[in-house]
Amino acid sequence: MSDDVIRIFDTTLRDGEQSPGCSMTLEEKLEVAHALTELGVDIIEAGFPIASPGDFESVRQIARQFGDRTTICGLARCRPEDIDRAWEALKEAENKRIHVFLATSAIHRQFKLKMATEEIVRRTAEMVGRAKEYCDDIEFSPEDASRTELDFLCEVVETAIKAGATTVNIPDTVGYATPNHYFHVISTLKKQVPNIDQAVISTHCHNDLGLAVANSLSAVEAGARQIECTINGLGERAGNAALEEVVMALKTRSDYYKVGTGIKTQKLVPTSKLVSTVTGMRIQRNKAVVGQNAFAHESGIHQHGMLQERSTYEIMRPEDVGFLGTNLVLGKHSGRHAFRDRLATLGFELEDDTFQQVWDDFITLADKKKEVYDADIQALVEQRSHHIPETWTLSRLHTSAGTGSIPTATLELKHEDGRVVQDAATGDGPIDAIFVAMERVVGLEVRLEDFEVGSVSSGKDALGEVKVTITDGERSFHGKAISTDVIEAAAQAYLQALNKSLHARKEVSPKA
Amino acid sequence: MSDDVIRIFDTTLRDGEQSPGCSMTLEEKLEVAHALTELGVDIIEAGFPIASPGDFESVRQIARQFGDRTTICGLARCRPEDIDRAWEALKEAENKRIHVFLATSAIHRQFKLKMATEEIVRRTAEMVGRAKEYCDDIEFSPEDASRTELDFLCEVVETAIKAGATTVNIPDTVGYATPNHYFHVISTLKKQVPNIDQAVISTHCHNDLGLAVANSLSAVEAGARQIECTINGLGERAGNAALEEVVMALKTRSDYYKVGTGIKTQKLVPTSKLVSTVTGMRIQRNKAVVGQNAFAHESGIHQHGMLQERSTYEIMRPEDVGFLGTNLVLGKHSGRHAFRDRLATLGFELEDDTFQQVWDDFITLADKKKEVYDADIQALVEQRSHHIPETWTLSRLHTSAGTGSIPTATLELKHEDGRVVQDAATGDGPIDAIFVAMERVVGLEVRLEDFEVGSVSSGKDALGEVKVTITDGERSFHGKAISTDVIEAAAQAYLQALNKSLHARKEVSPKA
Repeated sequence: MSDDVIRIFDTTLRDGEQSPGCSMTLEEKLEVAHALTELGVDIIEAGFPIASPGDFESVRQIARQFGDRTTICGLARCRPEDIDRAWEALKEAENKRIHVFLATSAIHRQFKLKMATEEIVRRTAEMVGRAKEYCDDIEFSPEDASRTELDFLCEVVETAIKAGATTVNIPDTVGYATPNHYFHVISTLKKQVPNIDQAVISTHCHNDLGLAVANSLSAVEAGARQIECTINGLGERAGNAALEEVVMALKTRSDYYKVGTGIKTQKLVPTSKLVSTVTGMRIQRNKAVVGQNAFAHESGIHQHGMLQERSTYEIMRPEDVGFLGTNLVLGKHSGRHAFRDRLATLGFELEDDTFQQVWDDFITLADKKKEVYDADIQALVEQRSHHIPETWTLSRLHTSAGTGSIPTATLELKHEDGRVVQDAATGDGPIDAIFVAMERVVGLEVRLEDFEVGSVSSGKDALGEVKVTITDGERSFHGKAISTDVIEAAAQAYLQALNKSLHARKEVSPKA
Repeated sequence: MSDDVIRIFDTTLRDGEQSPGCSMTLEEKLEVAHALTELGVDIIEAGFPIASPGDFESVRQIARQFGDRTTICGLARCRPEDIDRAWEALKEAENKRIHVFLATSAIHRQFKLKMATEEIVRRTAEMVGRAKEYCDDIEFSPEDASRTELDFLCEVVETAIKAGATTVNIPDTVGYATPNHYFHVISTLKKQVPNIDQAVISTHCHNDLGLAVANSLSAVEAGARQIECTINGLGERAGNAALEEVVMALKTRSDYYKVGTGIKTQKLVPTSKLVSTVTGMRIQRNKAVVGQNAFAHESGIHQHGMLQERSTYEIMRPEDVGFLGTNLVLGKHSGRHAFRDRLATLGFELEDDTFQQVWDDFITLADKKKEVYDADIQALVEQRSHHIPETWTLSRLHTSAGTGSIPTATLELKHEDGRVVQDAATGDGPIDAIFVAMERVVGLEVRLEDFEVGSVSSGKDALGEVKVTITDGERSFHGKAISTDVIEAAAQAYLQALNKSLHARKEVSPKA
């Protein structure tokens, strides 16, 4: 690659999935990996294969399905068993990378690893070497690099490159660096490590002090040519550098940074929405680039300026990042043809049976809701194009609640084997009563971790979007549904999460 | 002030309130101003007095109530009527500042102002001079400064200082600057403006590219000594620099920046929650410093490190920014004394009647919910300590809904004059039916802009927190309520928003 191209290394599926409440099922990971491939990321870090059989299996399937279009990466500690397992998961990919890490800062050496510096250098050489026997494309990360003594950091990096690392990543693991400090670290490596030209320097910044994007860009100015980042800035604690912000900063200020990326920026908003849906992590309205308000101008002075000349207050155009207009698009008399046209404009190509389902949903919605917006249509499509196992479906539901009466839910669920089960339950309110009744029928006892409702568009007949997160033992599952009736959406979302949980219990353990 | 103190200028009530959906009532603005004063901000920009009678009145009341403890600032364009009006609003404050602005960049001169550079210099001198006749503390902002030709910027800044400006603010109005570019702008002013020592240099950065915090800190390195920022990073489009991030970066990296602020950091999280409540803008879970996940460690490797030594993965402590533990604290048998103690520990001092209300709520909750967490208690207190006009109260409610039946709500509302009105209505679902019935009784027709439900803590018996935003003509109102029953909370939240709207309609127009 030429020197003015920044490689975008997405770690939504690894560091992002590590954030509390963000775990994804195999199907969800495959869907996100597909979206990342379409978005044009250069490397997908798909997981940490030795962490669990589920992690292993998802890395393996992502490697198999997307390894011909992008590089698939798996994480490994500096241990033989980690590296071997990563290779097993990755080997079917056409383009693959093993990412080996070992902490180098004094505090990590002393308290976590209990290893001396010589031992760390030796282990780095050995384990990078072992990975290199499997695979040509090797990344090495000295964990907590930004708090590591610079001379020692240079020594470790030199060792890793000598042993075969083709990318050296310099993580600001705890989000402690400032832009100038981080610039200094990268510049020093460029100057003092004799074989640095044989590897790409990479950044991995955390956002604890709100500086992850700025630190990443500062590293680019110092010569880094790979940025590790995540969609919506997901990741441990306050998360990683947000992919959408890093990419749009480089693009909008290409006059200054003089580098570019291979990202198809029009896909940023759809990808952001998908990740928000599968992880249940809502995006703040004032989030840069992908938030609902990112392009909204409220004050009279700004609106006046915008009418004269957009560039007075706008440095990016909403369409460049994939925002849809909120124009009224369709009503119940619009017809199939107009609807299919609109879907195409929004970038959705649906197969005939999915189209039929979405069309039926649209007609039902248009009956209830006078004005159907682009955002509503997008929500309908998303709902139908997720492949969710449906062990149980909801066939009937009735709730009754009020002051002085006991909230009650009565429902009927149908099993895929044909069984029909009815039950009723009471609860703190009708939604709670539904949840209790469903668990009884389905035969699971789970914990409700999170329950969120938002509106897809505005107006009293707006679609309500319900997201629930449950935990069944160690694993968490998300459910999402939309309806003009929040109660019904809550029932559907909860059942979806229960179905995912049932499906996971049935999953055969992966073959190594 | 000494040179190692950074003045924190909060513009949540001005730039923050300008963001779509964030408008606040007078009572809410007073509550936020109170919290900002307690937080220790140096300057509160309370509004733009000429923009509307409501803006004028809130600046006037904030000036009157808090102007003895902090400096209250009002915004004005470079026009005599703006400056006069700002003075009228501010004059009762002990400490007051008039903030005058005029755009200086070529694109704003050409398209918005249609003014030549000489005219801008002349107008700056004249209008800063006019403001100075009223007040000693004058701030001047050349709008879109970061895109202004540097020589011209220096000329305007010099003129403003000569005319009496004591603070010169250098806005990155469109969020276009990079840290190095912004550093260069501030350094150039320091070098080339002969009278620069007579004023404090200030930053005002927008977050369109995710760089607002980094740009603000970069300006500090170049010599700026005031940072304009907002709670939760609210503001036009992607918002302003987040106060909590700027403050915690300066504090955590005081070894590097060698400056401090007067902010009481333990109040950051409560203030952030308050602003989120009154504006209806939810905080993303992975938001730095104040997000729910900001201090959460998920991965096994990090947890292992944390158990050995917190500083391996933690650069700030949650208690330093005011996070409450999620420990089980109280149950229904805990008693009034233990409850009052716990409130004190959480920083709440309630008057007797408010305490009685919160205690009653606690007993009701403890009946339904086995484990009551600190976050639940905080939510109960917040609910009772807001001063919300209660024209109508909900006395009875019943809903019925299900597949094949028509969702129906029956309710009884009581007016403060003693009237009791019952009505029923149908809707898309039971919540919609409640909203329709309420509007009928109350006699308002409003638009539902946003409807959100989140959970306060986790578990099936978690408190659900419902936030609604309605618009009545031009103005928007927020309502919030908590309950273990989402339907009941939705009803209470909607009624609260309707009551605010009724109250606003009755408000007498302010006396100038």
